[in-house]
Amino acid sequence: MSILVVGSVAFDSLETPSGKREKILGGAATHFSLAASFFTDVRVIGVVGEDFLPEHEAVMTRRGIDTAGIEHAKGLSFHWTGSYLKDLNAADTLATDLNVFATFEPKIPASYLDSDYLFLANIDPVLQARVRKQMPKVKMVAGDTMNYWIAAHRENLLKVLAELDVLLINDGEARMLSGESNALRAAQMVMALGPKSLVVKHGEYGATAYFSTRSFGKLEQTHELEQRPFRAPGLPLSDVVDPTGAGDSFAGGFYGYIASQGVTTPEVVRKAMFYGSVMGSFAVERFGTERLQTLTRAEIDERFGQLREISHL
Amino acid sequence: MSILVVGSVAFDSLETPSGKREKILGGAATHFSLAASFFTDVRVIGVVGEDFLPEHEAVMTRRGIDTAGIEHAKGLSFHWTGSYLKDLNAADTLATDLNVFATFEPKIPASYLDSDYLFLANIDPVLQARVRKQMPKVKMVAGDTMNYWIAAHRENLLKVLAELDVLLINDGEARMLSGESNALRAAQMVMALGPKSLVVKHGEYGATAYFSTRSFGKLEQTHELEQRPFRAPGLPLSDVVDPTGAGDSFAGGFYGYIASQGVTTPEVVRKAMFYGSVMGSFAVERFGTERLQTLTRAEIDERFGQLREISHL
Repeated sequence: MSILVVGSVAFDSLETPSGKREKILGGAATHFSLAASFFTDVRVIGVVGEDFLPEHEAVMTRRGIDTAGIEHAKGLSFHWTGSYLKDLNAADTLATDLNVFATFEPKIPASYLDSDYLFLANIDPVLQARVRKQMPKVKMVAGDTMNYWIAAHRENLLKVLAELDVLLINDGEARMLSGESNALRAAQMVMALGPKSLVVKHGEYGATAYFSTRSFGKLEQTHELEQRPFRAPGLPLSDVVDPTGAGDSFAGGFYGYIASQGVTTPEVVRKAMFYGSVMGSFAVERFGTERLQTLTRAEIDERFGQLREISHL
Repeated sequence: MSILVVGSVAFDSLETPSGKREKILGGAATHFSLAASFFTDVRVIGVVGEDFLPEHEAVMTRRGIDTAGIEHAKGLSFHWTGSYLKDLNAADTLATDLNVFATFEPKIPASYLDSDYLFLANIDPVLQARVRKQMPKVKMVAGDTMNYWIAAHRENLLKVLAELDVLLINDGEARMLSGESNALRAAQMVMALGPKSLVVKHGEYGATAYFSTRSFGKLEQTHELEQRPFRAPGLPLSDVVDPTGAGDSFAGGFYGYIASQGVTTPEVVRKAMFYGSVMGSFAVERFGTERLQTLTRAEIDERFGQLREISHL
């Protein structure tokens, strides 16, 4: 079934211990879409500027992604500049040029209205809420956010959280959102704010899914999922070139697999966690979207098998 | 089969967000022994002072641990003072009073000489090497170390590493020992220094075992283990009272299970990783050795099952 994603389609300038890149294709919606496109149909809503060329859009359309919802505006695209020289696990933001994103007003094309799954990538929660409102009939809503919105736009963010079947954030964001340092208690407190379930990403160590007692999407077997979290490992990698987009790629693999199955049984959710980890592991192996551009489904399933082998008794 | 462990038997004074304790029973050999005692026979070599009373020794003997190798010396026992108030994941050492440990000279009782497995807990590598030399016939040698020995006693430590079938350390120690920040490359570099295999502990995220191409103990199926690491998850816990001894308890569960099986097939090593994680998770639930004192094998196996459930597809 199809996923509609709203979020940033952007350019990134970054440096990591492996090298430096200027204005390469990036953005949360871009990474998410590419990762999810290996599993299901994906439709994107975003805004780009005049520097966003047909060759950039082709990166998405070559993977079958529907880009009808990408608005082309006057000016420059959103541009993030960051460095991982100090710490490969935490980006140091050097500049955030919102450009056309500053006045972004998401518009949903009529052809997108029958989308089954909605993903609200990391953008202003006011915009996330507006998109969610226009898509009342989706089977499931998942979303992401970041420290900036948690700290400075909490009221708006809480309105979005109340609408989510799944929130995907990282350890630091979970601590910040809950004000609690213990991971399990933080997860319970975050779910008490609204999301029916929560996926917390641990970088190289994988991710943990937590489930509240409320229903998870159209899940029939809620009972089994209720109590226990589920933990997917990260794959030990010898070359981490660029962590940008790892979390969005995780989300794309996770949500893309769920949408491809159309149900959220415990088995599907567990496999989705593994596919999320697999897609995150590929994303970091090259700069920007490079690795996802050349990836094949066979490689994905091979790595899924590796992840199983290194974690199963 | 029996394990001989040499290391500290000590007192800890510590404060954590859950409270404060003065001079409670601790030490690497103590935590290791208690954890391993649920799986196999354990014999301890260490030194204590006049403040170490029969009630302290009884904590070990009640679990069937052979304490004939604990030397009683004039003076006070080794005493560590630390705080976890700033960060529950990293102890802040406030004082280290070596006391009788300063002149410790390990002596191996004749009744210990037929021990099958040797564990060199975190002590001066000169002493580790001396004990190892006196036990030439053991099936397998495992060991631990810490930042202090890595930084200031590297030459002595390298002599011990060359003798190890398994080295158990944490992420920070692996980075420090190798000088490499990438976890997989760091593991390969550490094994190049000597240990045939390596277990790197990730705190709440579990641990990863790495295998070199050299044989691992008496492992027959080296081929299968050669390439792939194995990752055991940590169990998400809502109450972490005192992390002291978690790593030693992991080692005790890991090595105790291996010794109980007498072989190091891939299946045994994988289960050992899970038992290590299980014992570490119990250790942190109360202060010092409290939780391990009341633990039962049934609780251990129940938690082993939980760990499997939260990590297996």
